[in-house]
Amino acid sequence: MTDVAAMLNAYPGERPQMDEDTLVICIQEALNCAQACIACADACSAEPSAAHLARCAGAALNCADIATAVVRVLSRSTSYNRDVTVTALRALDEACRACYGQCREHALEIESCRIGGDACRRCAQACQRLLSRMDAVGS
Amino acid sequence: MTDVAAMLNAYPGERPQMDEDTLVICIQEALNCAQACIACADACSAEPSAAHLARCAGAALNCADIATAVVRVLSRSTSYNRDVTVTALRALDEACRACYGQCREHALEIESCRIGGDACRRCAQACQRLLSRMDAVGS
Amino acid sequence: MTDVAAMLNAYPGERPQMDEDTLVICIQEALNCAQACIACADACSAEPSAAHLARCAGAALNCADIATAVVRVLSRSTSYNRDVTVTALRALDEACRACYGQCREHALEIESCRIGGDACRRCAQACQRLLSRMDAVGS
Amino acid sequence: MTDVAAMLNAYPGERPQMDEDTLVICIQEALNCAQACIACADACSAEPSAAHLARCAGAALNCADIATAVVRVLSRSTSYNRDVTVTALRALDEACRACYGQCREHALEIESCRIGGDACRRCAQACQRLLSRMDAVGS
Repeated sequence: MTDVAAMLNAYPGERPQMDEDTLVICIQEALNCAQACIACADACSAEPSAAHLARCAGAALNCADIATAVVRVLSRSTSYNRDVTVTALRALDEACRACYGQCREHALEIESCRIGGDACRRCAQACQRLLSRMDAVGS
Repeated sequence: MTDVAAMLNAYPGERPQMDEDTLVICIQEALNCAQACIACADACSAEPSAAHLARCAGAALNCADIATAVVRVLSRSTSYNRDVTVTALRALDEACRACYGQCREHALEIESCRIGGDACRRCAQACQRLLSRMDAVGS
Repeated sequence: MTDVAAMLNAYPGERPQMDEDTLVICIQEALNCAQACIACADACSAEPSAAHLARCAGAALNCADIATAVVRVLSRSTSYNRDVTVTALRALDEACRACYGQCREHALEIESCRIGGDACRRCAQACQRLLSRMDAVGS
Repeated sequence: MTDVAAMLNAYPGERPQMDEDTLVICIQEALNCAQACIACADACSAEPSAAHLARCAGAALNCADIATAVVRVLSRSTSYNRDVTVTALRALDEACRACYGQCREHALEIESCRIGGDACRRCAQACQRLLSRMDAVGS
């Protein structure tokens, strides 16, 4: 569906030691999460209870911005720096958890929060899996 | 694969008059194009002929940045403004053409430019199709 | 205050034919506009009348995203492409006008809309001035 | 010069407990760092030794993307979440250090790396200062 895996394989140099499938899934989940969170914040603002959903919308926007940055950092092999990748993944994990925590409070009533929260949950898991694989490889 | 269509359908208000399939495809192509262009610029910089590929890498980075903005503008229904959407789509169309023009010069030798250029071509077409559908609906 | 002018002057190649002061001012206004619009949307969401301000907040988020992309396009000399720059500036001009139009409706009551709207107005003017200087230089 | 401080003061709700001057400086340094890093990567790609500078250019692009996200997270008071802010600041601190480390290797010969590296150093310090003030306030 996306060119993420094909682009990784086309990289002409030596790639950082990261499990390829885990990396591809993490990039794809972060791409999806960024878009879903933008749409989720927009849907929250269109609810009659928008004032009540302000913290949820803001958490989604934070998550979208960090996810956008992480997609880019993970897509660059040339300048790979383990500490930058690890701290960026941790920031995205926290942002996804914060947004998921907000979304699930309204997930029964608000469909966009159900979908957006689920996108965050999957993205947080993909970040954690990539982080644990990086630990296994060693610094 | 992505939540783009589901999030559109979960929007609680009245959506802008845009053909839904065309819109979903445009958002997905722009998401994919943004990631592919970041990876393409990175791969260009890792080629031995990096100095020769500098204009291609820069065109890809411009395309990624405009595509990222357009994904977000298209994902917001609440603040829909026809003039903003149209001019943003035109900017992405130009950025995709510029990047495609650079990429296809090296597409035979450099696999990442072949894939990246193709992502730009598909994204430009998706922008043009959405623009032509918006013309049909009227201003 | 910023390194915008110093970075432009440190560029080692030939720069695109754009009036330097006009370019520096446009980059600085777009940088400021992007930040002000993010804060403006956040302040709107914290008002008791948040539901009423949803279109204003969304217009500000669109403006911030396009301004962020334009700062980046204008900061790259290597891959300068006149059509990309012109269409990107037009998109930012429209996004700033749309946000200014929303903000000025509440500028008397809401201080953040007064400041954010003014940042958009200045940024739109800086885009228009750069566009008119580019016309003068010829295509 | 920027509207950062004015927008913070216009926020209608209760702001997170962060030292205001430290926060304003951090947002301004991150805004400047993001722009300087985009221009630095572009200047690197225009040097005859571009292939040699690829890691520096990539480190600058990573830094620009994380700085852009952090400016936005710090500009949102409504959805303030201490863990998100702390991990995002740490990611930016690492990205600035990585870019500074690359830039200073060429700072004597390449003016854009001297300016870009200095922008990263100041931004890293501003992140560390904000992090230490947040520790003082307590979690």
